[in-house]
Amino acid sequence: MALSPTPEDKFSFGLWTVGWQARDPFGDATRPAVDPVEAVHRLAGLGAYGVTFHDDDLVPFGSTESDRDARIARFRKALDATGLVVPMATTNLFTHPVFKDGALTSNDRSVRRYALRKVMRNLDLAAELGAHTYVFWGGREGSETDAAKDVGAALDRYREALDTLAAYTVERGYGLRFALEPKPNEPRGDILLPTIGHALAFASTLDHHGMVGVNPEVGHEQMAGLNFVHGIAQALWQGKLFHIDLNGQRGIRFDQDLVFGHGDVLSAFFLVDLLEHGGLAGGPRYDGPRHFDYKPGRTEDIDGVWASAAANMRTYLLLRERARSFRADPQVQAALAASRVAELAVPTLAPGETTADLLADRTAWEDFDLDAAAGRGYAYTQLEQLAVEHLLGAR
Amino acid sequence: MALSPTPEDKFSFGLWTVGWQARDPFGDATRPAVDPVEAVHRLAGLGAYGVTFHDDDLVPFGSTESDRDARIARFRKALDATGLVVPMATTNLFTHPVFKDGALTSNDRSVRRYALRKVMRNLDLAAELGAHTYVFWGGREGSETDAAKDVGAALDRYREALDTLAAYTVERGYGLRFALEPKPNEPRGDILLPTIGHALAFASTLDHHGMVGVNPEVGHEQMAGLNFVHGIAQALWQGKLFHIDLNGQRGIRFDQDLVFGHGDVLSAFFLVDLLEHGGLAGGPRYDGPRHFDYKPGRTEDIDGVWASAAANMRTYLLLRERARSFRADPQVQAALAASRVAELAVPTLAPGETTADLLADRTAWEDFDLDAAAGRGYAYTQLEQLAVEHLLGAR
Amino acid sequence: MALSPTPEDKFSFGLWTVGWQARDPFGDATRPAVDPVEAVHRLAGLGAYGVTFHDDDLVPFGSTESDRDARIARFRKALDATGLVVPMATTNLFTHPVFKDGALTSNDRSVRRYALRKVMRNLDLAAELGAHTYVFWGGREGSETDAAKDVGAALDRYREALDTLAAYTVERGYGLRFALEPKPNEPRGDILLPTIGHALAFASTLDHHGMVGVNPEVGHEQMAGLNFVHGIAQALWQGKLFHIDLNGQRGIRFDQDLVFGHGDVLSAFFLVDLLEHGGLAGGPRYDGPRHFDYKPGRTEDIDGVWASAAANMRTYLLLRERARSFRADPQVQAALAASRVAELAVPTLAPGETTADLLADRTAWEDFDLDAAAGRGYAYTQLEQLAVEHLLGAR
Amino acid sequence: MALSPTPEDKFSFGLWTVGWQARDPFGDATRPAVDPVEAVHRLAGLGAYGVTFHDDDLVPFGSTESDRDARIARFRKALDATGLVVPMATTNLFTHPVFKDGALTSNDRSVRRYALRKVMRNLDLAAELGAHTYVFWGGREGSETDAAKDVGAALDRYREALDTLAAYTVERGYGLRFALEPKPNEPRGDILLPTIGHALAFASTLDHHGMVGVNPEVGHEQMAGLNFVHGIAQALWQGKLFHIDLNGQRGIRFDQDLVFGHGDVLSAFFLVDLLEHGGLAGGPRYDGPRHFDYKPGRTEDIDGVWASAAANMRTYLLLRERARSFRADPQVQAALAASRVAELAVPTLAPGETTADLLADRTAWEDFDLDAAAGRGYAYTQLEQLAVEHLLGAR
Repeated sequence: MALSPTPEDKFSFGLWTVGWQARDPFGDATRPAVDPVEAVHRLAGLGAYGVTFHDDDLVPFGSTESDRDARIARFRKALDATGLVVPMATTNLFTHPVFKDGALTSNDRSVRRYALRKVMRNLDLAAELGAHTYVFWGGREGSETDAAKDVGAALDRYREALDTLAAYTVERGYGLRFALEPKPNEPRGDILLPTIGHALAFASTLDHHGMVGVNPEVGHEQMAGLNFVHGIAQALWQGKLFHIDLNGQRGIRFDQDLVFGHGDVLSAFFLVDLLEHGGLAGGPRYDGPRHFDYKPGRTEDIDGVWASAAANMRTYLLLRERARSFRADPQVQAALAASRVAELAVPTLAPGETTADLLADRTAWEDFDLDAAAGRGYAYTQLEQLAVEHLLGAR
Repeated sequence: MALSPTPEDKFSFGLWTVGWQARDPFGDATRPAVDPVEAVHRLAGLGAYGVTFHDDDLVPFGSTESDRDARIARFRKALDATGLVVPMATTNLFTHPVFKDGALTSNDRSVRRYALRKVMRNLDLAAELGAHTYVFWGGREGSETDAAKDVGAALDRYREALDTLAAYTVERGYGLRFALEPKPNEPRGDILLPTIGHALAFASTLDHHGMVGVNPEVGHEQMAGLNFVHGIAQALWQGKLFHIDLNGQRGIRFDQDLVFGHGDVLSAFFLVDLLEHGGLAGGPRYDGPRHFDYKPGRTEDIDGVWASAAANMRTYLLLRERARSFRADPQVQAALAASRVAELAVPTLAPGETTADLLADRTAWEDFDLDAAAGRGYAYTQLEQLAVEHLLGAR
Repeated sequence: MALSPTPEDKFSFGLWTVGWQARDPFGDATRPAVDPVEAVHRLAGLGAYGVTFHDDDLVPFGSTESDRDARIARFRKALDATGLVVPMATTNLFTHPVFKDGALTSNDRSVRRYALRKVMRNLDLAAELGAHTYVFWGGREGSETDAAKDVGAALDRYREALDTLAAYTVERGYGLRFALEPKPNEPRGDILLPTIGHALAFASTLDHHGMVGVNPEVGHEQMAGLNFVHGIAQALWQGKLFHIDLNGQRGIRFDQDLVFGHGDVLSAFFLVDLLEHGGLAGGPRYDGPRHFDYKPGRTEDIDGVWASAAANMRTYLLLRERARSFRADPQVQAALAASRVAELAVPTLAPGETTADLLADRTAWEDFDLDAAAGRGYAYTQLEQLAVEHLLGAR
Repeated sequence: MALSPTPEDKFSFGLWTVGWQARDPFGDATRPAVDPVEAVHRLAGLGAYGVTFHDDDLVPFGSTESDRDARIARFRKALDATGLVVPMATTNLFTHPVFKDGALTSNDRSVRRYALRKVMRNLDLAAELGAHTYVFWGGREGSETDAAKDVGAALDRYREALDTLAAYTVERGYGLRFALEPKPNEPRGDILLPTIGHALAFASTLDHHGMVGVNPEVGHEQMAGLNFVHGIAQALWQGKLFHIDLNGQRGIRFDQDLVFGHGDVLSAFFLVDLLEHGGLAGGPRYDGPRHFDYKPGRTEDIDGVWASAAANMRTYLLLRERARSFRADPQVQAALAASRVAELAVPTLAPGETTADLLADRTAWEDFDLDAAAGRGYAYTQLEQLAVEHLLGAR
C-alpha cells in the first residue's frame, strides 16, 4: 500500500538520528546507545532503503584499527543481510574539543591538517561502502565575535580544503560528489556559508565546482526565516541539489530536528510536491535519497525512537499522495491557469527579439494599458486555499 | 575635523530617504514632499558627496516628457551647483499596482516587458548623469504562496532580464555595473534572492556575470538573523561588493531602515572596520560610496530629517575613528596574535604539498597531539572585550 | 452542510479586512474602497454572523456630524436587513499623523486627551450598535528608541486611560468589556504590551480589571516566535479570553495578516481544537466570535477579496471537523492515556496533604525509583503524528 | 577606580557560569570542572560580591548526606574567608532525565512530587546560607507538541507548586522571595511562561503573589525579539523586579549566554541607565544584585573563563559611566525636554477632572488644533544620536 515505505521510495536515515541519546545543552542522555547493526536491521524492517553515517557514528572516536575493522565488517554484514545501501557519508568535525574553533577553518593550522586527514580517511570508507555523496556540514566553522575570525581568510582555507579533498577524490576515482550543508548558527554564533545561497555562491568558486553541490536541511533554512521551498527550487535550478535533509522545525529558534512534517506542514507539502513533480510550470524534479536528519524527541523511550522513524516516512508518503491529488485536480489546473503560473515559463522577449525591437514595440510602453494590467487579479489566494484543502485531504 | 563629513568620505543618500513622507502600513504621511533640488542642496551642505535615485523619485510616475526633461535639467543644475555626484541609480519597480506580482518575474508577461522598458529608460538617464552602478532591488519579485510562483521559471526570467539589460548596457557603452540587492521578505511574503548568498549564486549564472555584483543592506540581512559583516566579507572575497546600503535594524522583524548605528552598533563597528581596513588577516577593503538607505523616523519633522541625515554620517565617522584606534592598539595586536587570527591566512598545505605528502605526514594524524591542540584556548572573549572597549571609546 | 458557514458558527470580520485597499509600505492601493454597506451584504451572503469596525472605517475621519449620522443609519439598515450583528468595535488611534507618537501614551498630553475623546465617542456608538466587546490595539503606543519613552510613565498613562474609559463605560451602563490586543512591533519599533502575557499582567493592575481581558491575534504572537495555542490557553486559564483575532502568519517577520490557516496550519488545528473543546485534560472552551482579522492579498482583485473571506471560514470549519475526529478517535484516546495527559489534571498533593506530609512521604524522595521514572517514555511523537494525520484527513 | 569592581557594585555570578564545562549539543566538554571553592576565591578576587547556585552545582546530584554536608561546609568556609555572600539560589530541575517532561508540570505526578521535594530541600539550604531570593527557571516545563500538554492543567500544577512552596517558605520563616525566570524555548520546543509578561500575569494569580516576582534574563527576552529594557521597565513598574540575569545575546536564535554587552550593547546601555537611574521621567531604580548568567565561550581555556568573568563587570561599569554622563549632559536634558519625555509623567486628566469635564472641554476635541499637533516633531532621532554618542564615549 502506498503509505508503507519500500526501498523504491529511497528513504534514508543517519545513524546519528535514531541513535541520538538525547543529551541536550541542559540535560543528560535519556536513552542508551543504539548499536549501528541494530539500527540497520530496524530501519530495514521499517522500509528504509539507506543508512548514512559520520565516521564516529560507526566507529567511536579513538578506536583501534582492529576494532575499527571489526565494526566496519559487522556493519557491512548487516547491510548485506538487509539490502540497505549507504548513499551518503560525512565526517564528524564538531564533537571533539579539538574542533572547538572549527576544523577546515580553525585558526589553528595543525587542527586544519588533522581535519583534512580525518575527512580523507572517511572518504576512503565512504567509497568502499558505495556512497555516492559526501556531505560537509561545517557546524564549527564560524565565530562568536567578528574580532577573531577573518572571514575572507576562512573562505580561502575552506576553498583550499575542498579543492584538496575534491582532487583527492578524483585521483582515487571514488566517484563521490560533495554536498555542502548550510546552517546559519548553532553551535557557533555565526556559521560560515549560512544559507543555501551562500553555499551555492561559494561552490561556484571551487576548482572542481561541477562535483560540488548542496545538502540543504529543512530546519537550517527555516532557522533563518527563509522559505525552504524557494531555496530548494534555486538549488535545483542551478543543478546543485545533490542531497536533502528532511526534518521539522518550528520557526526561528534553536535547531529542533523534529520529525518531517511536525513543523511547517504546509511548506512540507509544497516541498514534497516540488521534489516529486518539479516546478509548477515544469523544470527538474529531485531523484536522490529522501534523507531524514531528525532527532527523536528527548521524551521518547526506545520504542518512541522507532515510532518516530516510521512517522517521518509515513508523513512523506501522505504528503506525496496529497501532492499527487493536487496536481491531478482539474480545479487546480484551472486555478493555475487563472493565476497565469505557466506564463512565467514563456520568455519575456519573443524568439529572436532584440532590445532594439523591444524599444520599438509601442505596446510594451507607450501604448501599454497600465490600468488594465494593474487591475487584473492573480487569484493566488484561491490557489493557496486549494492547496490547503488538498493538504487537509478535503478534496 | 574628522567628524565633519567631506566629499572624500564618499557619503551618499537616496532621494527617497530624506524624501520619505513617512506613510507606513498603518498610517498616513506625516511630512510634506521634499523637492529633489532642495535635497541636493541640503545634503551637499551636510557634507555628502553623492545622491542616488529611483526614476520615480526624480520624475513622478506618469509625468509628461517635457516635465521630465525640465525636472532632470533642474536636478542637474543642482548637482553642478553643489558638486554632488550621482554614483548610483535604480528603478522603482514596486510602487505602482501594475507591479503587484513583480516586475521582471511577474506571471504576466506584458508586465515583464513593461518593466524592462522602464529599466532601460532609466539606464539611459543613469548613464547620462554619470552613475557607475545600477541597483536592482526586486522587492516585488516573490510570492506569498508556493502554489502560485514557479521559482525556477522566475529565476529563468530574472536571468533573461538581467542578461538582456546587461547586453543593452554594454551595447550602449554605459559603463554601468549592476548590483543586486537582496532582501528576504517585505513587501512580498518571500522575495527571490533573499540573501547576499542567493544573489551571488544567481549572479554566477549570468551571461555578463563579471559586471554583476551585489548591493547588500544592513537591515535586509539582519532581517534574516544573518551576520552582516560575514555577508559583506563573503561578497568582498568573491570580488562582488559593488555598492553598500548602510542603515540600522533591531533584529528579525519588519524593515526598519533606522539611522546607521541605531541598531546593532557593535556589528556596525566591525562593518566599518572591515570596509575601511579589509580583513583582520589582510584582504581587500571597500572603495565605493558609503550609501545610507534609511528612513527618517515617522515622528520627526523636517528638521529631524536633516538631523537624522547628519547622524548617519557622524556615526560612521565615529565608528571609523574607533576602528582605527582598534587597529592601532598594540594590545589588540597582541590579542590578535594570541588568538592566532593571522594564522588562518597561512595555507593549510605547505607550498607544493600533495595529498600524498599530507597522508605521509605522521604529525598530522598518527602522532598529532590531540589533547594539546584541544586544550589550547583561543582567547576570543578577551579580543571581543577589547573591541567593545574601543567601541565605547574606553581605550 | 458542515463546511458552509452559518451564523451559529459566529464568524465575524472587520470592515477594514475586506475593505483593505492594499496599500503597503512600498506600494499604492491596488483596489477601490468597499462601501461598508456592501461589505455587510456580502459577508452576510457568505454566512458570517458579525461585522466589526474602527470608528474611521464606518465614518471617514473628519466627516461632518450629519454625514456621520447618515452613514451610521445606512449601516444600521444593512445590519437589520441581513441580520448581521456588531459583536465588537474599536478605535483607530494610528492612521492620523497626530498619533505618530501614540495616542493614550503619546508624550504630548494634548494628543492623549484627544485620543480619550475619540475613544469615548466610539464607545457611545459601539454600545448603541449592540457591541459587547471593545478592543484596544495600541499600535502606536511604543517607541523606536529607549531614550525617548519612559515606559513606566507610559504604563501609568495607559492605566489612567483604561481606568477612565472603563469608569465611563460603567457609568453609562454600556455593558462593554475591554479586550487589549498585544503586538510586539510594527508600526512602532517596540510596542507596549507586546504579548498576551504583558497585556494580562497589565490588566491585573487596573481598577476595573474584571472587565478587561485580551484579544490575541494569531500573527501578533507568532511575530515574537511564541506558541499561539499556549498563549490562548493561558488567557483562557486566567478567564481573560474575551475575543480573538484569527489569521495566518509565516513566522517572525512583518505582520502578514494572511487567511486563517494559510500559515502554520498545524498550530491552527490545535487552536481550533482548544477553542472548540477546551484543554485535552478538560478546562474551559471559548464561546465568543471567531473574528477574522486578515488582509486579502495585494495581488487579489475584488473577486479575490470575497473568495479570501470565504476561505477563512471554510478553513476554520475544515479544521473543526479534523479536531472533532481527532477527539473522537479511540486510538487518540489511547495515545493520550499512554502520554499521561490527563494525569496533569490530578493535583500533585493528595487532598488535604500538607508539606509536612509530603516531607514524610519516603516514596516521594528517599525511596523514589528515579531510574524507573526517568526511563519511562512519554510517547509524544506518536501523539503528534496522530494529530498530523488527522489534520491531513488521513484517519 | 570606577572601573574596578567592588562588592558595593553588587556583582554576582552563578557557580554554573564560570563552572560551565562547555559541553554543547554538538560537542563534548572543553574544560575541566571548577571546584566551587575555587570559584568563590577567584570571583572574590575579581571584585564580585556574591555567588549563586543550583543545588546540584554545589553538591553533585546523588551525593551522600555526609558528602553533601562536607561540601556545604567547605563552601561556607570559602564564603566566610572571602566575604562573598549568597544572594540567590535555585534548583536544578532540568539536567536529570527524570525531568525530561518537566518537573513541577510533568505529566507524571510522581515526578512532580519528587521535584517539590528537591526544591524544598534546597530552600532549606538557601535560607541557611542567607539567600534572599529563590529563582524558578522552568526550562523543562513545556512541550514540543500541543497534543501532549494541557497548558491549563500545567498552569494549575505550576500554581499549586508555587503556592505550596511559598507556604512552606513562609511557615519556616525563611524570608525568601521567589523570582520566576521566563524563557520562550530551549531546551523545550515551547516553555511555559515564555516572557516577562506571562510570568507577571501568572504571578498575579498566586496565593502569595506579594512574594513572587521575576528574574528576567537579557538573552531570554531577546530570543523572542522583545525589547529587554521595556520588559524590565514593566517589571519595575509592577514592583516585581526581584532579581536580574545579565548576559549577551545576538538576536533570535539559540540561547547564547554571551558576556554582558557582547551582544546588543546599545540596549545594554539603556538597561544599565534604567537600573541605575530609574525611568527618564522618574520612577524606581533597581537595588538588587547585578547577576551575570553567562557562559564563558567554548573556545576559552580556564584563563579565558576568569577573563570573561571580569569582562562582564568591566562592561557594566563602563556602561554605568556612560549612562551617568548621558544623564548629566545639559544637551541631553535639553533634548529630553524637546522630546517632551517628562510630559508623559503628567496625568492626562487634570486633578479632579471627570469624564464629564473632559467631554465638556472643547479644546480636547471640537477646537483641538489637529494639524498643529500632528505637525510637531518629537526629535527622537536626535536624542537617540546623543545616546549613541555617549555610549561611544564621544561626549
